[in-house]
Amino acid sequence: MAEIPTSPKNPLLKEIRRALMRGTLTEDGFAVAETFHLLEEALRSDCHIGTVLAAESVRGAVEQHVKKLRGVRVMVMEDRLLEQLATTESSQGVIALVKPPVWTLEQVLRGNSLVIVLDGVQDPGNAGAILRAAEAFGATGALFLKGSVSPYNSKTLRASAGSVFRLPVATGLDAELVRAALKQKGIRLIAAVARGERKLDDADLTRRCALAIGSEGRGVSASIQSGADEVTIPTAGVESLNAAVAASVLLYEASRQRRKAALTDGRRP
Amino acid sequence: MAEIPTSPKNPLLKEIRRALMRGTLTEDGFAVAETFHLLEEALRSDCHIGTVLAAESVRGAVEQHVKKLRGVRVMVMEDRLLEQLATTESSQGVIALVKPPVWTLEQVLRGNSLVIVLDGVQDPGNAGAILRAAEAFGATGALFLKGSVSPYNSKTLRASAGSVFRLPVATGLDAELVRAALKQKGIRLIAAVARGERKLDDADLTRRCALAIGSEGRGVSASIQSGADEVTIPTAGVESLNAAVAASVLLYEASRQRRKAALTDGRRP
Repeated sequence: MAEIPTSPKNPLLKEIRRALMRGTLTEDGFAVAETFHLLEEALRSDCHIGTVLAAESVRGAVEQHVKKLRGVRVMVMEDRLLEQLATTESSQGVIALVKPPVWTLEQVLRGNSLVIVLDGVQDPGNAGAILRAAEAFGATGALFLKGSVSPYNSKTLRASAGSVFRLPVATGLDAELVRAALKQKGIRLIAAVARGERKLDDADLTRRCALAIGSEGRGVSASIQSGADEVTIPTAGVESLNAAVAASVLLYEASRQRRKAALTDGRRP
Repeated sequence: MAEIPTSPKNPLLKEIRRALMRGTLTEDGFAVAETFHLLEEALRSDCHIGTVLAAESVRGAVEQHVKKLRGVRVMVMEDRLLEQLATTESSQGVIALVKPPVWTLEQVLRGNSLVIVLDGVQDPGNAGAILRAAEAFGATGALFLKGSVSPYNSKTLRASAGSVFRLPVATGLDAELVRAALKQKGIRLIAAVARGERKLDDADLTRRCALAIGSEGRGVSASIQSGADEVTIPTAGVESLNAAVAASVLLYEASRQRRKAALTDGRRP
């Protein structure tokens, strides 16, 4: 079951290094998951797991984790070599190649859509926390517009705590295309802005909607803003909120309103 | 106005390095603020600014920023030297020593208290985002219990976007002492737990309350939990939320309820 790569120049190791540097999937479409927690999350998702790299010192623990799966290749390597590969400050000695599902736009926008649109969010930790909150608050999916970090950046993966393996996600999208798709489906586009007239509490988020969150520096793009209703989270004293906090508050408010609506008039959340 | 330190062994530089490594204030009680944005936030706060270190290449910009202040010492140094000192990936060439106000517990707990209690939150980025959200949602202050990161960690400072210079904060606190102080003041302690019976929406947060958030790994401590009412943010699919997201959702909900109460029955928020 286990084999030992001979050299750091091993083509797979080179490709993993490249994907980690670029913060994207590998050429073969695998996300590079760097912790035991992510390996567990991948195992309890429907994702295909290709190769798992294990440092010699934790080989037993890794094999224990993956023993129920067929077709998983465990590559054992020197601790030092795996440490060099890892982007985490203190590596746990495991790197799993996980193929995230390929989602269609239909899947992201399904049912009583609640979609989070990342419009230029570049911090991978924020993007991951947004995916985690999106799953938690019942979003149907997330759309990553061009100019945002990849959902498969290794830091995004970790910050998502595995939500990226379960939540329908589409990435690299053109803003105009997303606007057209939302319009065609009758999904209302709502953009979070730092200073606007309509307060979040006064917006009806119980019906199909897509909530756009911009980068902390520049906010949502002109293209999204021009086709969206604006909504503002009421705050005092600060210029803006952290992007993950803002997105999570929007998602929480939508979830709160939907639960309340389901209770009071029997509408399904 | 400007002087040039002769060596990296300059005692002030050594002390700054030590504070950055430990993630605390300097021995003289200064927070080490590493960006132009934080320098601006410090300038618009009431904080005393001691020395400002400026890389030679941005000396003009730094002097422009601080020219209105008396008694600020600008130390100009080689770019390379300041780069070595900085903890940011790409230093902006400025490090300001900012003395945060010393707050009393009375100030944190004043008025219709809305207090966030950090009970073991160790990620400095999360702690900073919590302080930023706390100011934004009208919290009266934040209490950092022993075992939490310092609010004056340089990364916390940056993630707080300057809120740490304005929001009343007390740190290094014993959980028992905080419980006693809250009880004496008639402030209800509410702990966020991942799985509990009372949903956040059903909790009344319009009256004086302190909201405790634990570490992501372990949740709130036994000491806090035993003296607190529990509340759970309704979620699906995930094991827990990011600590900054959870704290921000609690604070948003309190702020929403308080604004609504102020509108409907004239109670002051």
